Amino acid sequence: MDRKKNISMAVIKRLPKYHRYLMELLKNDVDRISSKELSEKIGFTASQIRQDLNCFGDFGQQGYGYNVKELYNQISAILGLQKDYNYVIIGAGNLGQALANYTRFDKLGFNLKGIFDANPKLVGIRIRDIEIADIDEMENFLKSNPVDIGMLCVPQTSAQKVCDILVNGGVKGIWNFAPIDLTAPEDVIIENVHLSESLLTLVYLLNEGK
Amino acid sequence: MDRKKNISMAVIKRLPKYHRYLMELLKNDVDRISSKELSEKIGFTASQIRQDLNCFGDFGQQGYGYNVKELYNQISAILGLQKDYNYVIIGAGNLGQALANYTRFDKLGFNLKGIFDANPKLVGIRIRDIEIADIDEMENFLKSNPVDIGMLCVPQTSAQKVCDILVNGGVKGIWNFAPIDLTAPEDVIIENVHLSESLLTLVYLLNEGK
Repeated sequence: MDRKKNISMAVIKRLPKYHRYLMELLKNDVDRISSKELSEKIGFTASQIRQDLNCFGDFGQQGYGYNVKELYNQISAILGLQKDYNYVIIGAGNLGQALANYTRFDKLGFNLKGIFDANPKLVGIRIRDIEIADIDEMENFLKSNPVDIGMLCVPQTSAQKVCDILVNGGVKGIWNFAPIDLTAPEDVIIENVHLSESLLTLVYLLNEGK
Repeated sequence: MDRKKNISMAVIKRLPKYHRYLMELLKNDVDRISSKELSEKIGFTASQIRQDLNCFGDFGQQGYGYNVKELYNQISAILGLQKDYNYVIIGAGNLGQALANYTRFDKLGFNLKGIFDANPKLVGIRIRDIEIADIDEMENFLKSNPVDIGMLCVPQTSAQKVCDILVNGGVKGIWNFAPIDLTAPEDVIIENVHLSESLLTLVYLLNEGK
């Protein structure tokens, strides 16, 4: 896996899309696919696909295309999906509940271990067999339950505080939905989903050239 | 606004972030900021910031920095926020409800005009004074109500069908949360929020170099 180093962010960002398309192909019992056919489906050029996959090793045979199952397994392994991940959700409003109900994450090997909220009206409610706990209990919870990923669905004003508790509790991955750029030590990975920014990009493109 | 043409997607994707930071500065009554100070806050280099903003016109004065309010107004205008947008939400599950409750969108000039769902248990429920309507009513609704943006929070299997109804109804912007790449005419802008792909990027980065 030495080739994993120095892979550009652009390639990394495309990997999950390959993963999704290959999963679809597997579901539809497709055994083999050429970079040209894959290109038509996924919307990247065939040469882009060959280049991307070459970053990670020798996939596919000239003239025979890719073995879908093998490529799917390899990309899963590259993404780190050969093992499971434990996650907690902080903020059990609509967005937190939406994430808690995403069974898609289960299938990818993500295990929901806890849901936390500061709102006493939500504490005690069960979502998928997990009782929403008081946010004040999270620090202790993390001491006895190893958690890989914290999904932050709290308001902007409390996001950094919650992030600090997660980091102190040994959580190395933060999936942040709050519209704020969090501060954390270098070995903690923060992936942001800034919804307003995505919407504003849409609006810019709607007006472009007008 | 001729300079708007040929702006790279990378610059466009950074604009909403400038917008968010400038809004924060305005809230905190900051009048003036240098590209160096803005750089420290926003995390782009000062030269990157100067380059980005130069794409759109002459902002800032050498040695005096940027007038925050003016820059905010200009970036709002570049993004197209000088006017309002009407939107509908399709799919009133947790995610759709989360979006319906985002008052942040109101402040940016987005007006929620309708919520649609296929589930009879949800139809008739009110969210923020809007009654969830049956998805079958959307086609007619669009005939008499101009809508700019459709937010797609339906399952993957019905996403394309709903997208087609929106497009036929004259909607030019689709904000798509379903894990599928939609097909639409060229003049329709589709902005995807593929949550699973964002999560898989996080997992890749968590494992990188290990």
